This record gives sequence, C-alpha cells and structure tokens, in this order.
Amino acid sequence: MKVKDIGEQGLLRILQKFCPAEIVGDDCAVVLTNPNQSLAITTDMLVDGVHFSDRTTGPYYAGWRAAAANLSDLAAMGATPLAVTVALAVAPDTAVEWVEEFYRGMTACLQEYHTPIVGGDVVRSPVVTVAITAFGQVERDRTICRSNARSGWAIVATGVHGASRAGLELLLNPEFGQNLTEVDRASLILAHQCPKPRLDVLPVFWEILGCEGEFSIAGMDSSDGLADAIIQICRASGIGAKIDRTKLPIPDIFSEILSTEKALDWALYGGEDFELVLFLPSANAQLLVEKIGNGAAIVGIATDSTDIWLTDSSGIYPDTILKLDRGFQHF
Amino acid sequence: MKVKDIGEQGLLRILQKFCPAEIVGDDCAVVLTNPNQSLAITTDMLVDGVHFSDRTTGPYYAGWRAAAANLSDLAAMGATPLAVTVALAVAPDTAVEWVEEFYRGMTACLQEYHTPIVGGDVVRSPVVTVAITAFGQVERDRTICRSNARSGWAIVATGVHGASRAGLELLLNPEFGQNLTEVDRASLILAHQCPKPRLDVLPVFWEILGCEGEFSIAGMDSSDGLADAIIQICRASGIGAKIDRTKLPIPDIFSEILSTEKALDWALYGGEDFELVLFLPSANAQLLVEKIGNGAAIVGIATDSTDIWLTDSSGIYPDTILKLDRGFQHF
Repeated sequence: MKVKDIGEQGLLRILQKFCPAEIVGDDCAVVLTNPNQSLAITTDMLVDGVHFSDRTTGPYYAGWRAAAANLSDLAAMGATPLAVTVALAVAPDTAVEWVEEFYRGMTACLQEYHTPIVGGDVVRSPVVTVAITAFGQVERDRTICRSNARSGWAIVATGVHGASRAGLELLLNPEFGQNLTEVDRASLILAHQCPKPRLDVLPVFWEILGCEGEFSIAGMDSSDGLADAIIQICRASGIGAKIDRTKLPIPDIFSEILSTEKALDWALYGGEDFELVLFLPSANAQLLVEKIGNGAAIVGIATDSTDIWLTDSSGIYPDTILKLDRGFQHF
Repeated sequence: MKVKDIGEQGLLRILQKFCPAEIVGDDCAVVLTNPNQSLAITTDMLVDGVHFSDRTTGPYYAGWRAAAANLSDLAAMGATPLAVTVALAVAPDTAVEWVEEFYRGMTACLQEYHTPIVGGDVVRSPVVTVAITAFGQVERDRTICRSNARSGWAIVATGVHGASRAGLELLLNPEFGQNLTEVDRASLILAHQCPKPRLDVLPVFWEILGCEGEFSIAGMDSSDGLADAIIQICRASGIGAKIDRTKLPIPDIFSEILSTEKALDWALYGGEDFELVLFLPSANAQLLVEKIGNGAAIVGIATDSTDIWLTDSSGIYPDTILKLDRGFQHF
C-alpha cells in the first residue's frame, strides 16, 4: 500500500496512533513545564540515502536511531526529555508500511525514556525526509555546556567507542570480521542500529555533584565521534587536552579483527556511538567512571595550552596532534 | 557561490549570524521558561517545488512565510513566541545566496515578534527542505483550543480572506486583474508573500476576557482556509455552524475583478491568509471585532446540530452545506 492510496487523512490517522490522543489535534502541542527549569531544544534532519538507507538499516532501526540521536543531545545538556515533534516528508509512492515501521522504531526508543510524540507535520516530497525536534527540561544550575571545561579536569567517555562503526562495516561488507561469533557480530550491529542515549547517566551526575555549590562539569555527546567531541569542548572552553590512546574504551573484540591503527581510527572518528564525553574534576571523574561501569573510562586530561595531543602512555607511538578533519562532512 | 564551495562549516558560520551567539553552539538550545506557563510547540516542513517556488516567491518571502506560518500556529493557541529552531536540507549546488536570503526573510518576520532562531541542523539533500519548530508560552488557563466551542457562540474571522489566493493568482498569471491599480496589485501580492501572524490579537483577548472566571474561547488559524478552520473547530467541539456568505470579510477590490462565486471560493478555500477563526460568546465577539477592526467580522453562529450551513442573509442564494473537500490535499 502506497501513501497515495490512503491520502493525507489516512496517513495522519495512522501516525496519530503513535501520539497521545489528548495532545495532538490543535495548531500546537501544549506541554506543561515545571517552574525554575530551562527548556533544552534540539533538532535533527534525516534524509533518505544520506542519513539512512534500507541497505544497512531498515525503517524500524532508522526510526530508533533518529529518536536516540535527539535524546542523546538532551542527555548531553543534562536535560530530561519532555516530548518530541516529528515532521515527515514522504513521496506518494512511499510504502505506508515503511512509514509505520519507522514510527514503530522511533516510539520504541522514545517509550524507553517516557517521551511522547506530541505533534508534527506530514508533507509531500520526492525524497523521504524526517525532522525531529526534541525538548527537555533541565534545572538552570545543572545545565551541561561545552564551554565550562577547565584545565586540569579529567576527560571521561561514558562507554566504548567504535562499535557503531564496526556494526556499519558488518552491514556494508558482510565478509568483514568472518571470524566473529554470532553474538559478537550481533552486538556490534546492534550498537549501530539500536544505540542507547545515555540519559541513565544523569542521575549519577546529580548524585555525585548534587552536594556541591557549583556544578563543575562540561560535555557533549559523541554522535560525530569521540575526537570531534573532545575538540569541540576544548575549543568552546579555550583549553587543550592530552588524550592517552591506551585508555580509549574500545570493544574487546577489536584486538581480534582490527589492526591497532584501524581500531584507533574507528574509536576516535567512527561516530554515532551516542556516548557522552565529559570534562570534570578528577576525583568526581573517578567516582563517575566507577558508578557507570560498562566501559566508561578516563581518557585524558584537560590542559592550559590549546593544543590537543594524542599521547601513548605505553611509549610505543610518538605524540601526535588530534585533528578534526576525519569527521563526517555533510557537503 | 554554491554550498559545496564553502562546505558545512562555511554554511554554518553564515547561518549562525542569524542566531543569538550566546545560545547556539551546544547540543541543545536552552531557553528559560517562566513558571505556571505551558509550552506550545508547532512544526512545519516546507519542500522546494511543493511549498515554495522561485516562480512565485523568492527565497526572502519563502523564509518570511515559513516563519509567519509557525508564529500563526502559536497565535492560534494564544501563545507568545519564545524561540524557533530551523532544520535545513540543501544540495551541494544550492546557491549560498538563496540560503542567506531565506534566512533574511525568516528573521525579518521573527524579529517583528521578538523571536530568536536558537538552533537547528544543516544537512545535505537532493531537495531543498526546511523544517521549522516554534515554541511559545501560554498561561495554562488561557490556552485556546479547537474543542472548546459551544452552541450559540459567535464565529469571528480576524481579517479579510482570499487576499493571499488573489496574490498567488497575480504571481502565477500576470494577465489576471489587469484593471487593478498598482497599489491594489501590490497589496494582494504582499498578502500572499508577506502574511502577518495575528499575535497582535492576543492582548485584545486578554483585555476582553481577562476579568472572567472562565476563558470562553475556541479557535485556530485559517492557514488551510476559512472553511477548513470552521469545520475543524466544529468537529473538535461536536457542534455545527451557520455561516452567512454576506458577512465574509473579503478584499473590497474582489467585486471589481472576480465573480461572486469566485470571490466566495477564494475567501472560503483560498488558504494562507493566516488570520484567526474564533468562536466566543457574542457580546465578547462584538467587542473583539470592534477593537481589532481592519476587516475583522462576525461571520456566523455556532449551532447544536453538527451540520455546517452556508446561508445567505440577502436571500439570493439557497442554503448549502459547507464542505471540506476543496482544501489543499498533500497527496
């Protein structure tokens, strides 16, 4: 069944099943906000053939990933999700089942974090395009920004990096990693298709940092890669960093299937792991890493100089400057 | 100069000039909300060749219209705008000047209503696509919904309808309306290219309705046409209406350039006038129309029966049922 077979009203009826009935149907969604809170807002646009493709990721996981990316941005600011809106452009020949599967994947992810789709728009376009806007609330004094990092603070990655990139490789080149077990294979593919935004980390911050007068933390998510996140935070804060390549949390299995250089490349530049990269005083960083577990690690230290060095505490490789230019470029 | 000539970073540098520097640059925009307020959220997606076209509307006015449509949705809920986010998809060959003009038009409209662009996304796509999400705040007890209308209330249109459709006709068919003066011509084209969201009407509601215990009003905007708005509100409220065709506010000039039937058709189904359609007790409706002026009119009355009749108080035309099926269909 194609979109043109059911028309705009038919499509809207299907999509409204994914939204709370008491909110949709007016010119705007209306969400009650709590006092003394700020509103955090993030938008992502996804284009068929550019950001998702049936070749690697069916509609269900494309929807999951779209939701996860936005929730990850909220997590990166320390914000708890309130709701999302979804604008959808489809062609008359788009299969209705594709749209339903996309919304199923999106709401599956959103429901894990108690986040409703409160509104949106549906339009016609030759290219399937989805724009998601997510909003969350964050206490004014607990907002996590990129520009707050200070020299001397430790740099934390909340989980392994490179797994999503390896999962993508398995989907693109099935001959890759043929000596992997089914379980390892599936877990890397799942890391790519079904990433988990790290909203679970927020209560851990609040527990560790809650008693302090000042909320000493800076950070962002690693959606565009671990190297990108470190560089962006350093730039925004006017500092530098020393990253220790031996401390980067990579999947254990990488040592069996990848050269050291390739493993490092995917960990730093692979992207889409949707972990958080956080700068905070080292005692708190240590506590945070212990409480999160699951691959969370201190990967380096912030410095006064604005250079960002990739160092090697094992002494094998020379120090090199960490560059941004390996990240994803849109044009 | 094409987008591919300046790359993603170059494009972002240009677009950030349209945003407040202290807000953009993190994973989310953060906006402080006031206590005891609800958040109203609306999203529109616009696709090149579907929703705008250089044939009728250059990028400046395409941007203005996109902003106006979203602010109009906020006005329709009684919400005061806080901020918008803009997701933009462009092709590598899109002219940078097109993008800048679009943002110039968008911010010109937004600035009239003190609304900043606080964030967004920029991606690649074969088809230029823009998704705008607007946020406003509204006191919980002053939210204007479609479903609150009651039988016996008067139906108000806040201004003339059909002007935008006539302006579009002038752009599509320059030979149309050749006996128009330059001033009339320009004013109809401006109605199409440069519509004003009726946020100015909100303080008038509050003045009229402020002293009452209950906020007795229902409404929406007429972006999809006056007939559509009346029908949507009646459906949502489980009531009907009698609309008087002699009371519909149409541009004076229509009598010189259009048949009575064509003028009625454009007034009811033309769309994109971005006025408000409001149902409220008739004494308040009378006050509202007097205070707004500029073509605002009581066009009919809400009834118990769920039928929606187009009547003629001059007695020339027979009563007919008002239908939705002339409105814009996306597929």
